[in-house]
Amino acid sequence: MNIEAKIHAKGLNIPERKLGVGKAEPAVRSGNLVYTSGHTSGNHLGKVGKEFTKEQAFDGARDCALSCLGAIKAVIGDLDKITRIVKIIGFVNCAEGFSDTSSVIHGCTDLLHEIFGEKGRHARSAIGVYQLPANSAVEIEMIVEVKD
Amino acid sequence: MNIEAKIHAKGLNIPERKLGVGKAEPAVRSGNLVYTSGHTSGNHLGKVGKEFTKEQAFDGARDCALSCLGAIKAVIGDLDKITRIVKIIGFVNCAEGFSDTSSVIHGCTDLLHEIFGEKGRHARSAIGVYQLPANSAVEIEMIVEVKD
Amino acid sequence: MNIEAKIHAKGLNIPERKLGVGKAEPAVRSGNLVYTSGHTSGNHLGKVGKEFTKEQAFDGARDCALSCLGAIKAVIGDLDKITRIVKIIGFVNCAEGFSDTSSVIHGCTDLLHEIFGEKGRHARSAIGVYQLPANSAVEIEMIVEVKD
Repeated sequence: MNIEAKIHAKGLNIPERKLGVGKAEPAVRSGNLVYTSGHTSGNHLGKVGKEFTKEQAFDGARDCALSCLGAIKAVIGDLDKITRIVKIIGFVNCAEGFSDTSSVIHGCTDLLHEIFGEKGRHARSAIGVYQLPANSAVEIEMIVEVKD
Repeated sequence: MNIEAKIHAKGLNIPERKLGVGKAEPAVRSGNLVYTSGHTSGNHLGKVGKEFTKEQAFDGARDCALSCLGAIKAVIGDLDKITRIVKIIGFVNCAEGFSDTSSVIHGCTDLLHEIFGEKGRHARSAIGVYQLPANSAVEIEMIVEVKD
Repeated sequence: MNIEAKIHAKGLNIPERKLGVGKAEPAVRSGNLVYTSGHTSGNHLGKVGKEFTKEQAFDGARDCALSCLGAIKAVIGDLDKITRIVKIIGFVNCAEGFSDTSSVIHGCTDLLHEIFGEKGRHARSAIGVYQLPANSAVEIEMIVEVKD
């Protein structure tokens, strides 16, 4: 089963992201690496630990992952060209006192493991920030290695 | 018109950044990529949404971009060797309740588009943080692709 | 004297980090670059400027550096294969009003200079954030260039 089929089999979809439209590109390739922009979850606007529980934000992190994959697809055409998820940075919009940022970003990490298997094992930072664009609860950026 | 001439034609200047002087290097090259340090705007010290409006911080983000370009020039000598602005991360020192970080970082993005055209189209994250060095309002780091 | 001997001569140790165990990998290699996860100091839990002074957090940043080096060793086997410390991002868990993030991250930077000499000179960002995983005081991630 290819990568997109695995995603569909989980009842999930990869949103379409277009190049050359917005101020920032959804993703840019240089050599064998694709760098995504930070992608937010449009369905999760507010702070984790206040407007959202960490379980809700976990779902938001999964949405961010799907948006990143949509961005990468816009650049390389076929997600089966990904040879490794190299690195992600997850930013969590934290209410005062909420520091379990890791559990939130697991929403992205777990999906990548389920879909990509060993290729999905990545380095990661999970950072609690004060604000994100449009008050998004989560924002994630990825670096992935691709083949031609 | 070359890149520096385009910058001068806008009434702007690229500040000189020196290698081998400070604790951190302004930028480091590895292969065909140059990674800059986070560069702040010395003219904008304070929080956006409190000491600065987003319009003022937009100018600060443009200053950060010029400082990054000065750092890249210190490494590669000639900004016309840049083949692509790959990625930027913009950090905005946010007052409570200010979340329009994207509008601030546009100050960097717009300049890159004006100067580099298609090569200037980049992936981006715009993050609202709690503090920046010396209470700077904005800090930006870049990854650019260069040719020999 | 090789890199590990230099570290031991300073009375310091590189902690062992294992691949394939946790949710996130300690580090991942792609081409000639190794990207570490964000590594925290387990001995420093709290905010800088409140629970910790910047001098204490400086030590925490040094611990983060050692943990990153342990992660890189897990990937490449021998730290003498590092040809350049390319980039670090340091995240500092700041109490309100604390903005001297640079002085904290110097704890990592100084160690890298002492151990790696010219190869240790890196680009850097020092960011003050609102929360870090498990309320860690400091988190650092590295990108290093390696040879085969």
